[in-house]
Amino acid sequence: MKTMRDAGEFGLIAGLARHRPRSRRVLCGIGDDAAVVRPQPGNASLFTTDMLIEGVHFLRSQPAAAIGHKAIAASLSDIAAMAGVPEWALVSLGVPPGLSLKYVQELYRGMRRTCRTFGVEIIGGDTNRSDKIILAVFVSGRANPRQTVLRSGARPQDAILVTGRIGGAASGGHLRFAPRVAEAQFLIKHAALHAMIDISDGLVQDLRHILTQSNVGAVLHLDRVPLSPAARSVRAAVTAGEDFELLFTAAERDAQRLMKMWPFGPEVLLTRIGTITSPQAGLRIFDARGKAVTFPQEGFRHF
Amino acid sequence: MKTMRDAGEFGLIAGLARHRPRSRRVLCGIGDDAAVVRPQPGNASLFTTDMLIEGVHFLRSQPAAAIGHKAIAASLSDIAAMAGVPEWALVSLGVPPGLSLKYVQELYRGMRRTCRTFGVEIIGGDTNRSDKIILAVFVSGRANPRQTVLRSGARPQDAILVTGRIGGAASGGHLRFAPRVAEAQFLIKHAALHAMIDISDGLVQDLRHILTQSNVGAVLHLDRVPLSPAARSVRAAVTAGEDFELLFTAAERDAQRLMKMWPFGPEVLLTRIGTITSPQAGLRIFDARGKAVTFPQEGFRHF
Repeated sequence: MKTMRDAGEFGLIAGLARHRPRSRRVLCGIGDDAAVVRPQPGNASLFTTDMLIEGVHFLRSQPAAAIGHKAIAASLSDIAAMAGVPEWALVSLGVPPGLSLKYVQELYRGMRRTCRTFGVEIIGGDTNRSDKIILAVFVSGRANPRQTVLRSGARPQDAILVTGRIGGAASGGHLRFAPRVAEAQFLIKHAALHAMIDISDGLVQDLRHILTQSNVGAVLHLDRVPLSPAARSVRAAVTAGEDFELLFTAAERDAQRLMKMWPFGPEVLLTRIGTITSPQAGLRIFDARGKAVTFPQEGFRHF
Repeated sequence: MKTMRDAGEFGLIAGLARHRPRSRRVLCGIGDDAAVVRPQPGNASLFTTDMLIEGVHFLRSQPAAAIGHKAIAASLSDIAAMAGVPEWALVSLGVPPGLSLKYVQELYRGMRRTCRTFGVEIIGGDTNRSDKIILAVFVSGRANPRQTVLRSGARPQDAILVTGRIGGAASGGHLRFAPRVAEAQFLIKHAALHAMIDISDGLVQDLRHILTQSNVGAVLHLDRVPLSPAARSVRAAVTAGEDFELLFTAAERDAQRLMKMWPFGPEVLLTRIGTITSPQAGLRIFDARGKAVTFPQEGFRHF
């Protein structure tokens, strides 16, 4: 079995560089000191980065292509949450010298396949020796600067909506999720979104990010949260991370229109789950019987 | 002593977000799903990424601010090697939960200080739990698309030049080096550079990257290589990595003019060390007595 030690960094890079970029906007891709691309005039540039570490975010026994998918898709989800279109990816890898070359190629195959699905090109990167497998993905995208959706724009009386179903990540869905890029583009085409975030830490915790940054409160109805068939309970679902669905707010009328026009169902639902309120009330969460509930821990703790 | 576990990710991010971006081109900085910036019209965008891993590239006992400096400066050096101007940085960190918050703050202080020196803003990032400290830095820059300098443009009869002094990295210089951003800007302002690379793997090995990608050969004179006072020997100096000096080629007349005009000496030398030849001859290296020499290993091996 050929290992990374046998192939060396330059062997790997030579293999990667064989995948020539297709976009004529790429003036220089993999294999030089930096990648060079031509921006689209009039657009803002979006930048995001995510790191996956073996033993923390995945196990080596899991399928390498799925891990590659997740590394890319997590960053694409961040771009979607700003209402942007992803364009370019760079990948910094840490790999153990004894790791099979095949495993690394599978990682890249998973990354490349997901990139292709979303029209993204891998134009650069870096490979390093490491005890644990590390994937540091950087993605750049574009957006109309007047249409990016921040976390800080939610207003009292806004409807709170969520795409897809919540709570599937715990049973392996976190390796298979689809970033909601097209869905976000549909949303901003047909309505003025006030605030948006992708659910990476858990619905309740990520909603709190919107509330804090918008200085508003909210009412959340747990019985309206659309659950994944794999979800163990609604409580588990709304406090578990990595669903990578979009959570956003818009004026009541816009929300109604979006739900009526929504073309992605039933694969990807669009559901109203609550309402933004004035800041004084904070976040109030109600169960199916209208009883206020609280959670000792509202989402994923990184440390 | 307060640790990362005590502070948590959001505590750290809140601290970082307090450093507001100064550039009006930053439409959204740290604290949202992605950063948003306005590109400068007419420029190409440059992207590069570098990863530093504890135990591989540095030790925890080394000064954290110097490690932060190196992580940023390595990427700035990549941008310089394309004749670009660095603009934005994103930082993905992996940190052990038991690591002191002070250490992480020192890492950031080192990164921020170097960014400030070069007019770069840290506009995003990500923090993750990890056994080893990991810094994955991504830097974006701009360049005139007609002035980027690739590795692939060297031509027979070109002069080969190098900035600064070689061989200081081994004795700790790899934590203190200055990326040659202003030097590269001077070079492209006053001459047509044909090929350029920054010396990260070792002078001989990096020269070979230019030769391979340009399909040319070269003559290298070891006695002309300007040595750092810290260099152990010329052989060690030209095969050791991480000098982060610029190695480039230009037509003879341009090279002469550049050396005459060069305004950065004696702190930063500009030295001619060889000549590009036709590809048949390959790379020929001569010592002070005119004797051809070879190296069993020409530079840093990543695996």
